[in-house]
Amino acid sequence: MRRIVIGVMGPGEGAIASDREMADRLGRLIAEAGWVLLTGGRMTGVMEAASWGAKAAGGLVVGILPGNDTRGVSEAVDLAIVTDLGNARNNINVLSSDAIVACGMGLGTASEVALALKNGKFIVLLNCDRETRDFWLRLGGGKVAIAESPESAIALVEGEIARR
Amino acid sequence: MRRIVIGVMGPGEGAIASDREMADRLGRLIAEAGWVLLTGGRMTGVMEAASWGAKAAGGLVVGILPGNDTRGVSEAVDLAIVTDLGNARNNINVLSSDAIVACGMGLGTASEVALALKNGKFIVLLNCDRETRDFWLRLGGGKVAIAESPESAIALVEGEIARR
Amino acid sequence: MRRIVIGVMGPGEGAIASDREMADRLGRLIAEAGWVLLTGGRMTGVMEAASWGAKAAGGLVVGILPGNDTRGVSEAVDLAIVTDLGNARNNINVLSSDAIVACGMGLGTASEVALALKNGKFIVLLNCDRETRDFWLRLGGGKVAIAESPESAIALVEGEIARR
Amino acid sequence: MRRIVIGVMGPGEGAIASDREMADRLGRLIAEAGWVLLTGGRMTGVMEAASWGAKAAGGLVVGILPGNDTRGVSEAVDLAIVTDLGNARNNINVLSSDAIVACGMGLGTASEVALALKNGKFIVLLNCDRETRDFWLRLGGGKVAIAESPESAIALVEGEIARR
Repeated sequence: MRRIVIGVMGPGEGAIASDREMADRLGRLIAEAGWVLLTGGRMTGVMEAASWGAKAAGGLVVGILPGNDTRGVSEAVDLAIVTDLGNARNNINVLSSDAIVACGMGLGTASEVALALKNGKFIVLLNCDRETRDFWLRLGGGKVAIAESPESAIALVEGEIARR
Repeated sequence: MRRIVIGVMGPGEGAIASDREMADRLGRLIAEAGWVLLTGGRMTGVMEAASWGAKAAGGLVVGILPGNDTRGVSEAVDLAIVTDLGNARNNINVLSSDAIVACGMGLGTASEVALALKNGKFIVLLNCDRETRDFWLRLGGGKVAIAESPESAIALVEGEIARR
Repeated sequence: MRRIVIGVMGPGEGAIASDREMADRLGRLIAEAGWVLLTGGRMTGVMEAASWGAKAAGGLVVGILPGNDTRGVSEAVDLAIVTDLGNARNNINVLSSDAIVACGMGLGTASEVALALKNGKFIVLLNCDRETRDFWLRLGGGKVAIAESPESAIALVEGEIARR
Repeated sequence: MRRIVIGVMGPGEGAIASDREMADRLGRLIAEAGWVLLTGGRMTGVMEAASWGAKAAGGLVVGILPGNDTRGVSEAVDLAIVTDLGNARNNINVLSSDAIVACGMGLGTASEVALALKNGKFIVLLNCDRETRDFWLRLGGGKVAIAESPESAIALVEGEIARR
C-alpha cells in the first residue's frame, strides 16, 4: 500500500542551529509515525538534519536531488531520486509530499512554500519570524498553519492526514 | 546578436485591475527599449496585459507555457515555448530573463521571485504592499528593488542591464 | 545506507503479453536481490506488471509519475514521486536507477534507452526484435547488453552492480 | 501573430561534416521560409551549424539551453531559453516545434525523435543510415518521413505545415 510521505523543507547552507535541531526532531517524529520522510536530499542544513533524525528512528528517507548524479547526497538518504532539474526539483518535493513542514526560511524554502500552496498542499511553518508568517498567511489562506514546536507541527500534519 | 530579455511576472486569474494596467505599460516600455518581453504566456492577468502592451509597441513577445501544447496561449505571444512542466516552468521564466519585474503578487509570482533571487537575478517589485516588500527585501538582499511605477521599474532595469 | 535501485522501463498501454510476463518476473527477481524497483509508476503495461512482481516478493516499489497528482498510479507502488513533468520525467527514471532493464520497446521506452545511454547508464534490452537491438547496440556501444530472459537480464545487472 | 517554429535536432560534438553542412542548409531554408529556427542552442555540431545558416539568411534563432546560464550558447542564437533541465530540455525542444528535422543521429537526437513521436509531432529524418530509418519508421508510423536532402526535408515540412 502506498506510504504516506511528509516533506521537510528548509534552508541548506543558510540553516541556523535551531533550524537543524528542530529538523532533527521532525525527522524522528515522522519516522515514529510510520511515515516516509522526503527532503531535498543534500548533505546540508535542514535536509541533512531531518534525514538523520528519521534515520535514528528507523524511518525511510527519500532525497530529491537537484543534480545529475548522487554527489552531495546525505548519507542518511535511503532512496535518492536524481532529477537534474536544479531548483525546479522543488516542485517535485512538494507534489510528492502529502503534507509539508517548512523549518526555517530561505529562498529555496520560499519557492517550496509558494509551490506547495499553488498546488493546494497543506504546509506548516516552523521557526519563522513574524514577517514570514504574515506574508504566507495572507497569500496562502487556509492551507498554511503555524507551529511553535516540532511536536505541534507534527500534530497539525496528523490532523491534515486524518482529514484526507 | 543575442537579444536582451526582460521577464514580467505576476498573477494570472488573480490579477487586479492595477496589476494589468501597469503590466500593459511595462510591456510597452520593454518593447520601446528594444528588449524582448518574456512572460508565462497564458491568456490571463499580468502575462496577457504585458504581452499586449509589448505587441502594441511592436515588440517581440515570448511565452513560456506550462502545458504540453499551445492551448490557452495569449494571442499576443509571438514565440510559444511549450514546456509541459507545470509550475516548474517558473524556473525557466526567471533563468531566461536578464532582469525581472514582478507586477502584483500571487503564489506563482512568489515562487518566481524566490527562484529569481536564488539564481542571483535582479528583480523589481511593483504594485506590492508593505508586507510583501518587507519579506522579499529581507530574504533577497541587494538583488531586490522596489518601484512605484512602471517607468521607475524600467529605469531600475536599465541600470541593472547597464551594469552587466 | 543508500539502497540500490533498478529501473524497469517498457511500454505502457502498448505492452504485449510477453512484455508483461517478463516484467513481472523482473520485478520478483529485483525484490529477491534486495534492490528497490523503480518504474514510471502508472497502472498499465510493463510498469504495472513489474511493480506487482516486486510487491509479490516483498520488495519496495518506487513510481515516478508524469502527472501532478497520484491519479493512475499502480496500486503496487509504495512510494509515488509526483513530477508534473510529462514525458520529461523519463530522464529522472534513468538518472535515479543504478542500472536499467528495458522490457519491450515503445516510444517512451526508446526515449528512456537514449537518455540512459546519454547519461552513461548501463541498460539491458529484453524482449526486443533484431532491428531494435541493432539500432541501440550501434548507438550505445559498451553500455548496452542484450538478454534473452529475465533471469539473464538480472545476471547482467548483477555483474554491472558488482563492477561499480 | 504566433510564429511557426521548426526544430532542427542532431548530434552536438558527435556531428560529422555532412550533418553540419546539411544543418547549415536547413537553417537557411527555414529562415527563407519565414519560420523561426529552434535548436538545442549550444555552440557545437548540428545546433551551431543550423543556427548560423538561419542567421545568414536573416532568420530568428531560438536556442533551448540545458544549463542554468548562457555559457556555451551559440553566438548565432538570438533568443536563449535557459532551462537548467539537462537532457530533459529535449522534451521542450520538440514540444515547442511545429515540425522537426533530425539531421544525423546520436543519443540526444534519438531521445528527441522518440519524444517528438510520443507527442504526435511530425519529424523528418535526414542523413541517417538504413538501420536508423527502419527503427523509427517501425516505431513512429505515419509521423516519420525520410528525406534525402535539406531541400526535400523542408518540402516535407511545408506539406505538414499546410495540412495543419
